[in-house]
Amino acid sequence: MVFEREGLVRLSHTDAAGVIFFPRLLEMAQESWEDFLAANGLALAHGLEGPRPLLPIVHCEADYRRPMRLGDRFRAQLSLARAGRSSLGLRHRFLAPDGTLLAEALTIHVAMERRSGQPVPLSDDLRGLLERLRTDETADGRG
Amino acid sequence: MVFEREGLVRLSHTDAAGVIFFPRLLEMAQESWEDFLAANGLALAHGLEGPRPLLPIVHCEADYRRPMRLGDRFRAQLSLARAGRSSLGLRHRFLAPDGTLLAEALTIHVAMERRSGQPVPLSDDLRGLLERLRTDETADGRG
Amino acid sequence: MVFEREGLVRLSHTDAAGVIFFPRLLEMAQESWEDFLAANGLALAHGLEGPRPLLPIVHCEADYRRPMRLGDRFRAQLSLARAGRSSLGLRHRFLAPDGTLLAEALTIHVAMERRSGQPVPLSDDLRGLLERLRTDETADGRG
Amino acid sequence: MVFEREGLVRLSHTDAAGVIFFPRLLEMAQESWEDFLAANGLALAHGLEGPRPLLPIVHCEADYRRPMRLGDRFRAQLSLARAGRSSLGLRHRFLAPDGTLLAEALTIHVAMERRSGQPVPLSDDLRGLLERLRTDETADGRG
Repeated sequence: MVFEREGLVRLSHTDAAGVIFFPRLLEMAQESWEDFLAANGLALAHGLEGPRPLLPIVHCEADYRRPMRLGDRFRAQLSLARAGRSSLGLRHRFLAPDGTLLAEALTIHVAMERRSGQPVPLSDDLRGLLERLRTDETADGRG
Repeated sequence: MVFEREGLVRLSHTDAAGVIFFPRLLEMAQESWEDFLAANGLALAHGLEGPRPLLPIVHCEADYRRPMRLGDRFRAQLSLARAGRSSLGLRHRFLAPDGTLLAEALTIHVAMERRSGQPVPLSDDLRGLLERLRTDETADGRG
Repeated sequence: MVFEREGLVRLSHTDAAGVIFFPRLLEMAQESWEDFLAANGLALAHGLEGPRPLLPIVHCEADYRRPMRLGDRFRAQLSLARAGRSSLGLRHRFLAPDGTLLAEALTIHVAMERRSGQPVPLSDDLRGLLERLRTDETADGRG
Repeated sequence: MVFEREGLVRLSHTDAAGVIFFPRLLEMAQESWEDFLAANGLALAHGLEGPRPLLPIVHCEADYRRPMRLGDRFRAQLSLARAGRSSLGLRHRFLAPDGTLLAEALTIHVAMERRSGQPVPLSDDLRGLLERLRTDETADGRG
């Protein structure tokens, strides 16, 4: 089970080399996560207010396989790389319309208590939601 | 005749004050223009390659009426403010779901010959396309 | 009296057309304001916390006179366009090393009470600081 | 031998969570590389024009250790992680004024022939320059 959205390489993504400026791929990855949450009735904003724990990113990485140029269309796929007690890993794949892999990324998020910055368990809400991203290969990590 | 798209205030749009970082509104405006071109079969990329004239922005302005916060949904409306011989002005309005005006922007584009940077007339293709954005109030400018 | 800083057109500023992506000029303008505040011992962050009023931007505009390309050096000049009771206007000029005007921008900020969003008078601190940006042509606005 | 620059967390780096938006750290890393090249008389722009090979990023990763907030000052350190025949790895460390490690990043660049996209050897110029970033731990990779 993978969440998929369609995207377009925009002028704001590109740089003078004519391809996407590399940090923009991670913005695209974040965009997939936001769309997944929104599609499931959970707004990212909720985590930033009130008593809910924050879910900051503690690690990210990206591999750039093929140039992504202005106006190129792509499919962005989001799946669960691992879910631990207090952390989760998201895998992002960016594909050309013909299925060619353009780029990959991984983001690791940790649930943190707002004041102390200490890790806390992932909420049941979120854990339920992540079931929708679980793939066969997803092994339970220990986070 | 107005082109409309739906948008979402993303984490990448916001700043530490909790609202959109003001230059991001102009990125959103550019996004509407790109979506309009794509919806009409004209890719922005085409203008950046080959013999077609470039269409750089020579002026922009924006007014921020209401705070736009993370997770807020909006409708972005694009219409023609004016079309001259070699320039065009685009009006952008950002509305809350209930119709409240959140922000407005204006961008002025000038068709330029690639080498010399001299203004050239808007192409007939583009001029035809702009008819789809013309509103009753659009007066013919002199560009 | 003008505040001046030196800058460099970075890869992150550019787009596939090989020049700065137009909203980035407003990021550069904001950077000058932050450097001016920091040079005068006032951190922008202070306005975002505690009881001080916020100073959001309600209007901006920019004119692009000459292409600014990757690796170009520029001088960014900041001066006061106007200071009213609760608002201030900042003028930004971007110059090539030889003095050629590359671009100009204007940003209007309004002091707002944090909860209500109502305009409040500029603080005496800030008003004192703005004296350092006042030029002969600066007329007192009514803000 | 490490290249070091001073930086400031700017409003443009932050998001509604009050800390830097995670892809901005990689923009900061790129900024260090650009400053290092500029300090050594090599403009990044040169690689984007004429016959020189391009040096695109094929991999990046980042670890976020401590929150970086608006107005925080940091030192960014750049060193060589590895240099192979056609690739180089750059290590980026972001430190608080008291020396606390805030974040780390790694970027891998590959020299590519402009037309074919095939890897080519790093130029002697560049290889000479990298000597200034070589650290004791740098093992010669095979790139």
